[in-house]
Amino acid sequence: MDTIKGVTLTPIKIISNTKGDVMHALKKTDASFSEFGEAYFSTIHLHVIKGWKKHLEMKLNLFVPSGNIKFVLYDDRIESETYGNFFEVELGLNNYQRLTVPPGIWMAFEGKGAGINLLLNIASILHDPNETIACDLSNIKYQWEK
Amino acid sequence: MDTIKGVTLTPIKIISNTKGDVMHALKKTDASFSEFGEAYFSTIHLHVIKGWKKHLEMKLNLFVPSGNIKFVLYDDRIESETYGNFFEVELGLNNYQRLTVPPGIWMAFEGKGAGINLLLNIASILHDPNETIACDLSNIKYQWEK
Repeated sequence: MDTIKGVTLTPIKIISNTKGDVMHALKKTDASFSEFGEAYFSTIHLHVIKGWKKHLEMKLNLFVPSGNIKFVLYDDRIESETYGNFFEVELGLNNYQRLTVPPGIWMAFEGKGAGINLLLNIASILHDPNETIACDLSNIKYQWEK
Repeated sequence: MDTIKGVTLTPIKIISNTKGDVMHALKKTDASFSEFGEAYFSTIHLHVIKGWKKHLEMKLNLFVPSGNIKFVLYDDRIESETYGNFFEVELGLNNYQRLTVPPGIWMAFEGKGAGINLLLNIASILHDPNETIACDLSNIKYQWEK
């Protein structure tokens, strides 16, 4: 699989508990953490895709504590060593990792579970529509599964 | 219902979207926010109770983006105006609010949904077992439903 410079996947702990598990997400001492701006949830229905969207300033830390979501990232930063690369990963409790996305990377994501597909984004800045760019799904040539 | 000094409930926005809703959680500019220490998820099975537990330093900001969880808080701070009070609330997408709990308050919580009952805690400090006290459920006289 391709990599994209600045994008990281970090395995995180699930602590088993007979009453209900505890899943780590992000500590202020983690290398993935820079600033706390805002945390919000997003849900995505099965076989539905949100994207493409690029943040110009926000760094994302993404978690999928329920369901399964496939993330696809695309690097169109001309100066990047990984220019033109795609990166894809499907996250959920069966692959519970933190996906860290720096500003400047295109992202789209697809619901893969039949139930609630839930992501948490712990973002480095407050939501600001002026720092995001959106484009149609068809404008970036990625082969989504039918 | 009783109140407990320092405990707040804040309604938060759910933004409807045909592809999947977006649910706000916490912004650095919210009055409920003080510091970012750590974010983690906890799940709780139906009719199961975790607690009692008290944090001596951590301030909690709690969210239930999936399922339903009943939280019960108890104030045993002798100097508190609300000493001896219980506070209870059931959170979920049908009552989507931020529950903010200052240090010094006892808390227990019960799973109320048949599916995944998920809470997110955005805590003001890193997890530290030395700042928590636990006691048996029977040690604080609250009438849990059978």
